[in-house]
Amino acid sequence: MQPGSWIAVKGAGMRLTEERVARAYLLRVAEPPAAALAAFVSAHGPTEAAERVRARQVPPAVAQETEARAHLTVTAADLERAQEKLGARLITPEDDEWPSWPLLALTVAGARGIKGMSAPIALWARGGGRLDGAVKRSVTMVGSRAASSYGEHIASDWAFSLATEGVAIFSGAAYGIDAASHRGALAAAGVTVAVLGCALDAGYPAGHGRLLNKIAERGLVLSEYSPGTPPARHRFLVRNRLLAALSAATVVVEAGLRSGARNTANTARLLGRPVMAVPGPLISRNSAGCHDLIRNERAALVTSAAQVLEVVGALGADLAAESEPPPRATDQLTGDALLVHEALADTPKTVEQLVVDAGVAERAVRSVLPALEVEGFCERTEAGWRLARAPTRADPTWKG
Amino acid sequence: MQPGSWIAVKGAGMRLTEERVARAYLLRVAEPPAAALAAFVSAHGPTEAAERVRARQVPPAVAQETEARAHLTVTAADLERAQEKLGARLITPEDDEWPSWPLLALTVAGARGIKGMSAPIALWARGGGRLDGAVKRSVTMVGSRAASSYGEHIASDWAFSLATEGVAIFSGAAYGIDAASHRGALAAAGVTVAVLGCALDAGYPAGHGRLLNKIAERGLVLSEYSPGTPPARHRFLVRNRLLAALSAATVVVEAGLRSGARNTANTARLLGRPVMAVPGPLISRNSAGCHDLIRNERAALVTSAAQVLEVVGALGADLAAESEPPPRATDQLTGDALLVHEALADTPKTVEQLVVDAGVAERAVRSVLPALEVEGFCERTEAGWRLARAPTRADPTWKG
Repeated sequence: MQPGSWIAVKGAGMRLTEERVARAYLLRVAEPPAAALAAFVSAHGPTEAAERVRARQVPPAVAQETEARAHLTVTAADLERAQEKLGARLITPEDDEWPSWPLLALTVAGARGIKGMSAPIALWARGGGRLDGAVKRSVTMVGSRAASSYGEHIASDWAFSLATEGVAIFSGAAYGIDAASHRGALAAAGVTVAVLGCALDAGYPAGHGRLLNKIAERGLVLSEYSPGTPPARHRFLVRNRLLAALSAATVVVEAGLRSGARNTANTARLLGRPVMAVPGPLISRNSAGCHDLIRNERAALVTSAAQVLEVVGALGADLAAESEPPPRATDQLTGDALLVHEALADTPKTVEQLVVDAGVAERAVRSVLPALEVEGFCERTEAGWRLARAPTRADPTWKG
Repeated sequence: MQPGSWIAVKGAGMRLTEERVARAYLLRVAEPPAAALAAFVSAHGPTEAAERVRARQVPPAVAQETEARAHLTVTAADLERAQEKLGARLITPEDDEWPSWPLLALTVAGARGIKGMSAPIALWARGGGRLDGAVKRSVTMVGSRAASSYGEHIASDWAFSLATEGVAIFSGAAYGIDAASHRGALAAAGVTVAVLGCALDAGYPAGHGRLLNKIAERGLVLSEYSPGTPPARHRFLVRNRLLAALSAATVVVEAGLRSGARNTANTARLLGRPVMAVPGPLISRNSAGCHDLIRNERAALVTSAAQVLEVVGALGADLAAESEPPPRATDQLTGDALLVHEALADTPKTVEQLVVDAGVAERAVRSVLPALEVEGFCERTEAGWRLARAPTRADPTWKG
C-alpha cells in the first residue's frame, strides 16, 4: 500500500484508503441491492469500478443501476465528516472485520438467480463493536412493531438470556419486538447489532435515538445507506436480507400475517439459515404470522431461549434440556404389577378379588403383592390388600 | 341363522345371538387389550373361542390373558338386563354398524408387533347413533382435564363448527377439554361419541351423568369394559387406542407435558392418522404438551376449525381458506414504479430530485409518474410531484 493512499482519521482508526472512498461513492450511486454493480466491483475492484461508473463506461446492467446518481460525488472529506459528525466508519471487504463468510450466502443466492440477493458493497457502521466478532455467535430476533406485551416480554427475556450466553442479538431497531430484543441484550451487558433501512443519520425511528446510542456503545448500528438517505418501505425489505444473512439463525417472536418479520424469515430460509417462530394465543393477531410460518414448515416452533441457543450455539455445546415430565412413582410399574396396583383400592381386597379385578393370574398376583408392599405401594391388612396410606417412594428401583 | 339362536329384545333391536353372548363373555374374561384372545377369536369365531376359553383348552398366550376370569359367566339374561337397565347394547363385528375399516389399523399395528394394539372383541354402546355412520366423517378432540378457559373455549367453538359441518366429535367424556368438545357438538345438534375407560354403568366421571345422557341421545357412549368395571389409569391408556383408531384424525386442544391426550396423539400417529395440535401462550402449562408435539413434528399446528375440517373432510371438498393478508393498494406496485412511489413525499419534488432519491433513470421516472397519477397514487403540482392527498384506490389494476 502506498503511504499516500490513506489518511488516519484522528482517534478513530478508519483508514481513508482510495478503496474506501471508492466504495463510499459506489454505495451512494446505486440504490441497494445493486446486483450488477456488486458483481462489477468484484470483477474490477472498487477503485476502477468507481472510475468507470463516474465516466459512464459500464455495461448496460450497471448503467441502469447507476445512471440516475452517477454524477454525485464522495470525497475523503465526506468520510472524515461522517466520522466526526456521526462517529460513523465505513466497513469494507478490505477490512479484517468484514463478515465475508455470512455474506457469501447472499452472493450465492444472487448467482442462483434469486432477485434482490447480493452482498452489500460496504456497510456504514457506528459503534465500538467489531462486526466479525458479533456475527460469530449470533441470532436475529424480529417481529411486529405493534407488538403485544406478551411478545415484548418474550423478546427481551430471551435476548437477555441469549446475550448472557454470549450470543449477539441482531435486530432492526424498530418499535415493538425489535426494540425489546435490543433492550434485553443491553440489560445483560451483551452485544447487540441494529441494521437500519435508512442512513445512520436519518433520525429514524423517531424516539429511538437514545436506544441507538446505547446499542452503539457496546455493539454496532449498521446501514448500507449513505448519510442522508431517508427510510422507505422498500429499503426495509432490502435491509431484511442483511438481518437474515449476518446472523446464524432468525427467530420471529411475534408477527402478524403482513409483518415484515415474515419477509426476513423467508429470506433467512432462502439463505439456508434456520428459522424459528414463537407460538402464542390464537386470539392474538400478533401470533398469526408465527403460526402460519410453523404450520407451513417455514419455521420451527421454539418455546425457550435454550432451544434457540441450541440452534445458534456451538454445535453440541448448548443442547437444551428436553421438556420431560417429572416421573411419577407409579411410572416404574409395568406389566402385572401395574394391573394389580390399579386394581388396589383404599378398602382392602382379597387375593381372589384382585385376580378378577386386575385380570391377572393368581400366582402372578401373589408374587407381585409382596414386591409392591416392599416398595411402599400397598399394605397387607387382616381383610386383604389395600393401597398404601403413606406416600409412595419417589423413585422406586424395582420394576414389575 | 337358526330361529332359536337369537331373541329380539323388546323395543331395542339387539339380537341376542349366540355370537353376541359369546363376545360379551370374551370381553369379560380378559382385560383389554387382549391381543392373543382377539387373534384366537378371529381364528375360531366367537362361539367356539368362548367354549374353549371356558373349558381352558386354549394356547398358553390366551390362557395367560383369560385364566384369572375364565370362570365368570355371561348369559343372554345378562345382556337383556344391560339393555333394560342401562339401555346398553353390545356392538359386535357381526353387526352392520361395526367399524371394521377404522379398527383394522389396530389389528395391523398389533401384527407389526406394537404392544397393546388390537381391535376390541366387541363394544358396549349406549345411544341412538349408529357407529358406522359416526366414524365416516369424524375427529377426535382431546386435552387436559384441568384445562384453561382458553382451551375450553377453543374446544367447544371448534367442535360446534365441525359438528355443524357434519363431523362427529369423538372424545373421552373427561372434565376439561373432553367435556367442552362434546358440549360444542351437542350445541350444534351434531353427533358426538364418548369412549370411556370404564364400564357404561361405572358412574364416571362423577358429575357427567347428564352430559353422558345427552351424548347418548344423539350420538353414542362406548366402552369395551363389561358392566361393573371401575375406571383405572391403565384403562384410560387402553381406551385411548380406540379414540385414536375410530376417528379420521386427532386434535390435541390443550395438553400438559404429562397429559393423557399426548398418549392418544402418539397412538393416532402410530396408526397413521393425522394428528393436530393447537398452540397457545408460552406461559400456559396447558399448551406445553401441544408445543412439544408440534416442535417434535408429531402434530401439525392448527389455528382454526376450518384447518381441521380440511384434514378430516372429504378429500378436496373442504379446503380451508389460506390465511392471506388483505392486499394493500401499493402491493401492486413493482420495479421502478415502487421505487418512485417510495421517493414521493407530501411536499412536491421535481423530476430531477425524484431521479436521485429513487435511484431511477430520468426517462423511467418520467414514464412512471403519469401512470401513478392515473392510479391515484400521486398528483402533479406547480412545484413538482407529491403523494396524492385522497386515499389511493383499493384495487389498482395497473402494475409498474
